[in-house]
Amino acid sequence: MDEATAFAPGHVTAFFAPYPDDDPVRAGSRGAGLALSDGVEVTVRPPDGDVTDVAGDPAAAATEGGLAALDLDGSPAEMDPVNRVLAELGIVADVEVTSDVPVGAGFGVSGAAALATALAANELFALGRSENDLVRVAHAAEAAAGTGLGDVVGQFRGGLPVRLEPGAPGHGRMDGVPARPRVEYVSFGELSTERVLGGELDPVQEAGETALRRLMRAPDEHELLAAGREFASEAGLLVPEVAEAVEAVEAEGGQASMAMLGRTVYALGSGLSDAGYDADACAIHPTGATLRAVE
Amino acid sequence: MDEATAFAPGHVTAFFAPYPDDDPVRAGSRGAGLALSDGVEVTVRPPDGDVTDVAGDPAAAATEGGLAALDLDGSPAEMDPVNRVLAELGIVADVEVTSDVPVGAGFGVSGAAALATALAANELFALGRSENDLVRVAHAAEAAAGTGLGDVVGQFRGGLPVRLEPGAPGHGRMDGVPARPRVEYVSFGELSTERVLGGELDPVQEAGETALRRLMRAPDEHELLAAGREFASEAGLLVPEVAEAVEAVEAEGGQASMAMLGRTVYALGSGLSDAGYDADACAIHPTGATLRAVE
Repeated sequence: MDEATAFAPGHVTAFFAPYPDDDPVRAGSRGAGLALSDGVEVTVRPPDGDVTDVAGDPAAAATEGGLAALDLDGSPAEMDPVNRVLAELGIVADVEVTSDVPVGAGFGVSGAAALATALAANELFALGRSENDLVRVAHAAEAAAGTGLGDVVGQFRGGLPVRLEPGAPGHGRMDGVPARPRVEYVSFGELSTERVLGGELDPVQEAGETALRRLMRAPDEHELLAAGREFASEAGLLVPEVAEAVEAVEAEGGQASMAMLGRTVYALGSGLSDAGYDADACAIHPTGATLRAVE
Repeated sequence: MDEATAFAPGHVTAFFAPYPDDDPVRAGSRGAGLALSDGVEVTVRPPDGDVTDVAGDPAAAATEGGLAALDLDGSPAEMDPVNRVLAELGIVADVEVTSDVPVGAGFGVSGAAALATALAANELFALGRSENDLVRVAHAAEAAAGTGLGDVVGQFRGGLPVRLEPGAPGHGRMDGVPARPRVEYVSFGELSTERVLGGELDPVQEAGETALRRLMRAPDEHELLAAGREFASEAGLLVPEVAEAVEAVEAEGGQASMAMLGRTVYALGSGLSDAGYDADACAIHPTGATLRAVE
């Protein structure tokens, strides 16, 4: 075997209550979101065609594990969470990332890349880790890199994942909304997660907890969207282009909200098309992230 | 909406340690298995074309919820776990079950039917339950009916599910083996779960715990098969046709074991074909059970 490939769905967070922690496996968020059939595919290869496994030597792993090179949609790039995953696994590798969804726009591309890298590297280098172990490594890498607090566990579960308790497997606790609606989305560009999460967190936490309580009283796709919409307003996170699009969808009787955290609007069904937007459409991804079966 | 459909993968248990309990949400088993792309599809319809929801009236639900009629692969049939799911949900419905895998042969068809019924009924009758709730209802129905102790939670997770702790969501704890091998299987007929589980459980429990410890030291598909094979011998559960087929696969350098509990042999890759058997082939189902998206 000279390469392994894994897929992780894009993940739009509808609402969240952040719980940072110095321990990255305990850091996380409560909240809920949508795992999309549009996502991220990662192929891992040994850097020079040979499988270099430094996992047997912890000192070497700590200093030597990491990215040899990363390619994102055809161009060299850096992705700190992916580098951290390989370092933690004690592996040196080339990583090729292709994304169906825009980067930096609230689809959790960094988390998806970290998670798919963990799954593919485990297969290629025969590391013998369990699924929970690999999710833990990817979640901790995201949290430590400061790029996300809840995408990885949602991307592993798939569907419409709900984070009842924050943190990686063994700390957090998941549920899900058992619905599989069609989804549309339009992105207007990037938004800095760090800038938003670097501000005052109390109002966000309070709005996130309110939204979660609301959703779990009757968890279906309409409550998910409505709770997300209320959260975006309450937490003061709506950006103007997104607010305008949400209102346009609502004027046509549809439901839409803002992807947390991105300059992106998503809607149920054909909400954005009905409002005259040129939207991408996809399904809810029933699977969590998964290794691609070798044909 | 006049019907809803859900799919649940077939689930072959590789090994298990049973933990019966008077409380059916706590009853369960430790162990591991394989969720198959071959599985069970369930369509739920109102009995007379109308949605009859007695859930708002607990007394009526307790006495009135249940199957109006069940059709299994084109013939009227009875499935106690499915009836119990509808009773618990307070719903009267027609249920149509179609199965890719043989019934009573160790593929967890009753658990799959119960789980898919719960998902489809929740959608059709807009019950507003969460995924964990629905898995809990299906798991408890299986346990109370005495037809299984671990299939439902494995079928919800998908992949190569591992039951670290027994019981429904909120009680049990899951992990998974992150591999997606091709699988072959041959069934020689039915085997009574009740007869086996009605016997002495201590040797089964001990062999199951040993197998789980073995697997989690290096969880990959080969250890899963090897642990299952050792369990089948240690627990004294191998039946003659299956033992013969396992040996034939091993003689060709392959890996095979017995589906717990069924007169069924399963093998990795092309193990059974290589040994001259006319086997069915399928993939590991990456998804847990899921509602079919409405097109």
